[in-house]
Amino acid sequence: MKPNITIITLGVSDLDRAIAFYQNGLGFPLQENSNENIAFFQAQGTTLALYPRDKLAEDITIEDTGSGFSGFTLAHNVSSPEAVDATLNEAVEAGATLIKPGQNVFWGGYSGYFADPDGFYWEVAWDPYLSEDS
Amino acid sequence: MKPNITIITLGVSDLDRAIAFYQNGLGFPLQENSNENIAFFQAQGTTLALYPRDKLAEDITIEDTGSGFSGFTLAHNVSSPEAVDATLNEAVEAGATLIKPGQNVFWGGYSGYFADPDGFYWEVAWDPYLSEDS
Repeated sequence: MKPNITIITLGVSDLDRAIAFYQNGLGFPLQENSNENIAFFQAQGTTLALYPRDKLAEDITIEDTGSGFSGFTLAHNVSSPEAVDATLNEAVEAGATLIKPGQNVFWGGYSGYFADPDGFYWEVAWDPYLSEDS
Repeated sequence: MKPNITIITLGVSDLDRAIAFYQNGLGFPLQENSNENIAFFQAQGTTLALYPRDKLAEDITIEDTGSGFSGFTLAHNVSSPEAVDATLNEAVEAGATLIKPGQNVFWGGYSGYFADPDGFYWEVAWDPYLSEDS
């Protein structure tokens, strides 16, 4: 099995709200293959998809019983500490909740977290050992 | 904010078990920047990381209270229905749990799901409208 993650699908409670956050708020480009039931955004090397949480559970064939910490994060690297703060502000203006303000962290970088409208955690980070751009 | 998902980090309950599953079981190549505290696997366009769940919650600055359905899936596309079944079998042999056997699905493809040792859901899918390879 090649390490190929084709799509990351988030099970959301209000599809319209989630689409508005990612498309209008964060500026992610909606793919043409999206429709009224599911939204796809082309991300670098993978696709971020939004789909109603109850339908996602149904598709997996499991019960939708979860709550609390989902046990995963999405990371978004930018090119400077200032860009971390700017991106966190941009997300909050788009409707995200600031969870951890940008700060120097133990591994030598600068990072913070926001939660999207469904509570999915995004880390926004500057890593001095990388040259990733925003 | 560009649609750049640099890293997907899974908060796992037993790091050694999770590394064994992804590295030895599924054959994902471990990145050199991994260490005894965190594991990184280069995936196509993004990085899959494994990190202890309690430490991930601590890093976000939240309580680790979740259980049940985490509300997200990772998708892995392959080139044929037969490859879906073969990949599901490979994952089960590596220690995954088969959740939904490969089957024809409503959107015209063939797909199934497995759960990794921490309960994270992977869809393995053949999409006749794509030419993705495994």
